[in-house]
Amino acid sequence: MKKIAVVGCTGAVGLTMLELLENTDYAVECMASARSAGQTLKVGSRSYLISEFSVEACAACDIVFLCVSGKFALQYGRQLSESSFVIDNSSAFRYEPDVPLLVPPVNGAAYQGEKLIANPNCSSAIALMVLGPLHLAYELDSLIVSTYQAASGAGKPAMLELVENTKHFSDYGESNSSSNFPYNLAFNVIPQVDQFESNGYTKEEMKVVWEVRKVLACPDLPISTTAVRVPTLRSHAESLTIKFKQPVNSLSAVRALLQRSPGVEVIDRPDEKRYPMPMTSTYKHAVEVGRIRHNLIYGDCGLDMFISGDQLLRGASLNAFEIMQLVSA
Amino acid sequence: MKKIAVVGCTGAVGLTMLELLENTDYAVECMASARSAGQTLKVGSRSYLISEFSVEACAACDIVFLCVSGKFALQYGRQLSESSFVIDNSSAFRYEPDVPLLVPPVNGAAYQGEKLIANPNCSSAIALMVLGPLHLAYELDSLIVSTYQAASGAGKPAMLELVENTKHFSDYGESNSSSNFPYNLAFNVIPQVDQFESNGYTKEEMKVVWEVRKVLACPDLPISTTAVRVPTLRSHAESLTIKFKQPVNSLSAVRALLQRSPGVEVIDRPDEKRYPMPMTSTYKHAVEVGRIRHNLIYGDCGLDMFISGDQLLRGASLNAFEIMQLVSA
Repeated sequence: MKKIAVVGCTGAVGLTMLELLENTDYAVECMASARSAGQTLKVGSRSYLISEFSVEACAACDIVFLCVSGKFALQYGRQLSESSFVIDNSSAFRYEPDVPLLVPPVNGAAYQGEKLIANPNCSSAIALMVLGPLHLAYELDSLIVSTYQAASGAGKPAMLELVENTKHFSDYGESNSSSNFPYNLAFNVIPQVDQFESNGYTKEEMKVVWEVRKVLACPDLPISTTAVRVPTLRSHAESLTIKFKQPVNSLSAVRALLQRSPGVEVIDRPDEKRYPMPMTSTYKHAVEVGRIRHNLIYGDCGLDMFISGDQLLRGASLNAFEIMQLVSA
Repeated sequence: MKKIAVVGCTGAVGLTMLELLENTDYAVECMASARSAGQTLKVGSRSYLISEFSVEACAACDIVFLCVSGKFALQYGRQLSESSFVIDNSSAFRYEPDVPLLVPPVNGAAYQGEKLIANPNCSSAIALMVLGPLHLAYELDSLIVSTYQAASGAGKPAMLELVENTKHFSDYGESNSSSNFPYNLAFNVIPQVDQFESNGYTKEEMKVVWEVRKVLACPDLPISTTAVRVPTLRSHAESLTIKFKQPVNSLSAVRALLQRSPGVEVIDRPDEKRYPMPMTSTYKHAVEVGRIRHNLIYGDCGLDMFISGDQLLRGASLNAFEIMQLVSA
């Protein structure tokens, strides 16, 4: 029986990982800061005593899942990987050449036993579930992404704040303050996720660029992203404009390809008003894809589509869980 | 003194037009269906007795503003234009070759005295305020748009429904039904605005394609749009990816060009967290533009940017008001 440490177990991603582990036979060690240590954490039918994080306690585990800050990960990640497999959910190691960045259904076959593994950004992970099979079939030439990102990407307090701020606006007709987003998100959209880089893009936008390139092993793939926070709770959506090197002659073939791809659910029946939405993708393991149509600029070589996936599951914990299965195999 | 008929005065667009007319010296005739006729409508300091729509009453007015259904406009538009200038807010006549489609700051100079004039779709009108000056300076080569559209585009009841459904979700943790959108919009995004066309695009998406081409007089301009409803109240936002024929060497020059364009406000200081948002563009006459950066695919010939504009003002009534001023001149 493998032993897993979940470090940062009280956060939204940590809790979602514990939900995924509930009905498995992994032994689970819950770790957090001294503030939470000693508390009991109930997740479904399991109950955990939270212990304080320590390198020694981690070393006693086969796999360590870090759902902590990038700063914390940077400090301990490599050291922990001397004794255990380490799956890091932060961006600390994602762009290091010796650290694989894995979306198991897409590039799991390229995994060569490395001890330190990076879990991708949520927007990247969700898009890659669809981009991976499409790239194999038609070869990506360029990609334009506009995101519709949920509050959960900013953590559990951000989700609660969105609900509170929405109530306040509904009752008083005006916005109150925000501590989890740059501005109040209730009945608003905010074109800033993470900090700005010197090229005018946010780090979130550049993460999509860097990570799609790395996972697809296309270091020069032209990609442009606009990342926008919208008032939804835990499912991201993304509008994708893709140019391929090979012509895409049949939309039915595209739908069939995606439907048989693991972790992807095609919902594409406009005549029945069926398409991807946060309302339906929330709590779902698969990424929803629909609105698949030939792009009006690139003709046969272009597709536009819309996707939606649970940010905490497919965008974080579920991908990490699949990495765990990969290293446990 | 010019006399204006506002037909459909009780809807969101009609009411916004009456607000714009409040401090002008236009005489205003409020018309609606028999159901509303006889009621008194108070808008700011003015008070109107609503009369039932009739062709004869319209014929006594210099200008008729139709903010009614496309079906109604189709039935009466041309007939009314025999005696009055008619500005139609529906899509009924927008694509007729003999009917000008006007965004006055952009193509007002092309107006040649036609009596029937079409007011553009809200997403088109808002984007064109920014695309117009950019096209003059750098010449558009292609355009990709993803929208973040507010409830107001579906009318006043849709705005009230969004607030009610949001309260319900906040109180009970689950969605109730929707009668104004295909699905409940509270904490959701819906990739369907208007009906689907046979090419897989919605009519809203094709309106942007057709109308941007017509207003810029570029009948073959390649454009692709994804139109998405988000839970905001009355300001649309749009993510634009633009390819130009001429290289754009200086972002400062772009910002200066847009800042001196009428009806445009540049809000583009990422270092100060200043960018366009529904929260700030609501009730504003200008379209906000920011997040201006060189696109990572088209290099010097490409710009990505984010815009936001009040759907009822710049996206409908204010543009129609500026058409009124043009025909009254």
